[in-house]
Amino acid sequence: MRSPTENATLALLLEAAAAPTPGNVDRSRDHPDLRFEQFLAGAVGANEGIAKAAAGEPVGAAFEQAVAGMGTSAGENTQFGALLLLIPLVRTAGEGPLTAENVQEVVDTTTVADAAAFYRAFEHVDVRVDDPPDDFSDLDVRRGKAAIPALEARDLTLLDVLAASADRDGVAREWTVGFERSMAIAEQLRAEDGAAPVEAGVQTPRTAVADWIARTDRLLERAARTHLWVLGTALDSLVATAHDEATARSVRDRARALLPDETTPPPTVEDREAFAQRLVEREINPGMTADLLAAGLFVALERDEVAI
Amino acid sequence: MRSPTENATLALLLEAAAAPTPGNVDRSRDHPDLRFEQFLAGAVGANEGIAKAAAGEPVGAAFEQAVAGMGTSAGENTQFGALLLLIPLVRTAGEGPLTAENVQEVVDTTTVADAAAFYRAFEHVDVRVDDPPDDFSDLDVRRGKAAIPALEARDLTLLDVLAASADRDGVAREWTVGFERSMAIAEQLRAEDGAAPVEAGVQTPRTAVADWIARTDRLLERAARTHLWVLGTALDSLVATAHDEATARSVRDRARALLPDETTPPPTVEDREAFAQRLVEREINPGMTADLLAAGLFVALERDEVAI
Repeated sequence: MRSPTENATLALLLEAAAAPTPGNVDRSRDHPDLRFEQFLAGAVGANEGIAKAAAGEPVGAAFEQAVAGMGTSAGENTQFGALLLLIPLVRTAGEGPLTAENVQEVVDTTTVADAAAFYRAFEHVDVRVDDPPDDFSDLDVRRGKAAIPALEARDLTLLDVLAASADRDGVAREWTVGFERSMAIAEQLRAEDGAAPVEAGVQTPRTAVADWIARTDRLLERAARTHLWVLGTALDSLVATAHDEATARSVRDRARALLPDETTPPPTVEDREAFAQRLVEREINPGMTADLLAAGLFVALERDEVAI
Repeated sequence: MRSPTENATLALLLEAAAAPTPGNVDRSRDHPDLRFEQFLAGAVGANEGIAKAAAGEPVGAAFEQAVAGMGTSAGENTQFGALLLLIPLVRTAGEGPLTAENVQEVVDTTTVADAAAFYRAFEHVDVRVDDPPDDFSDLDVRRGKAAIPALEARDLTLLDVLAASADRDGVAREWTVGFERSMAIAEQLRAEDGAAPVEAGVQTPRTAVADWIARTDRLLERAARTHLWVLGTALDSLVATAHDEATARSVRDRARALLPDETTPPPTVEDREAFAQRLVEREINPGMTADLLAAGLFVALERDEVAI
């Protein structure tokens, strides 16, 4: 059995390797300014911070250390959002069963100190973020640790901070809804042939997609198919931030059009590759989708529901 | 700065990802019975044993733990030989400068207990090995821990055991020659444009190969070019074991024919891919070459001579 730390590091590596994951760096595709080996190095560098979370250290400190290690090792921000999901999940798994209730309790009990560590994490790497809401301008994460006094004055926990952007950031949103999409992705990854389709957040015809995913027992291929399902289902908030919401909607709709349903067969390898190539050319990087996939892979590995 | 443990784990990942590495699983190629994700999982599973070596624990115990973790995580033997090189190198790096002299001292001071742990490691995974020399039949590694009494009766250290097969096993050989090929590979990986060619163990015209490697600053591509240089230079002892020496020689000669020299330009991508494909089809897996590359990558990373 792998430890929670090992499963989290492996989840980062599998997410990076699964291919094609349209728009994301993968086993077969680098971006001009971000290469596959940087994701390998980022996962390795995050390992110590992840281990702190597994050992029960505070979520904020573990996250900051993981991000700092990732940035030093990879030389870039490779997995910031994935770590923001993995750290509370790992902390939960280190304490007991990895249920939605238990992870919700972990995030519910985060503190102002956790929030301060989160702000410090932005000093270690460049993260692409949106403007804060109007009533949060003194708490713009781009201010880094300079925002900590405001944070303390307003007595905001890390959950409070993330809840403030939950409607515009699909990673932050997970913190407020019991990691619902991460859990649904884990279900989808483990799909067994003929098993009942999952319920949460699915807008495409379910049985056909679940059957398609279940039709391979190779985890990297399952992960890539699941990636397309997430891309075609949930609006990628990082695409909306980096481009605009119309672009994010267009990506989702194109991904959805590739998903099988009762009348549409599964996409060919060529269709999937062409879509991946198109997103790379347009420099559209669905980072939220990748982050959610890493979290879902961790949950599935940790529950021993998928095999390498 | 990455720690020695992080660099060793990253070296395993980079070795697995570099492509094409003819005959070995890589970023673009799985084998029918061994897939890329198993190498990712193996590297993650080995991490704790590697950390023990970095912390100064005995080489044998650290190796056994790394192999056990690798086997559990990957479900197969993915990196046994690479770990046999990395563990003493990591132990050395954890203590001071990573020089040939210092690693030689680490292996020179291994004990009978280290040898016993090495034999126990064979209980954790299937390793392809040759028949032992005649005077070593009671010490066949395939006997696993059953051979330990004979080991103790003959008072053999881990270095003694490996020295006995150094002439037929290129990984064991490294233990007896100050890790000479691992060090030469690290030199080749860091080659700077116009730098003097490396000296150790090179049988092909040096300047042209070193220039070719130096012509890319992408580490995974450098690693793949260096892999071809090793393959064309050193007879792969695992190919000789799994097939026969004529096959190993033929692989070396074909690889050498692809290497550039004063009159031959560097191979095209197509030539390299075709060679890789040919070896996969013939089920020829140059495992020694992969193991040496992982060791060389570690040395180069640890000396901060190559960048991600």
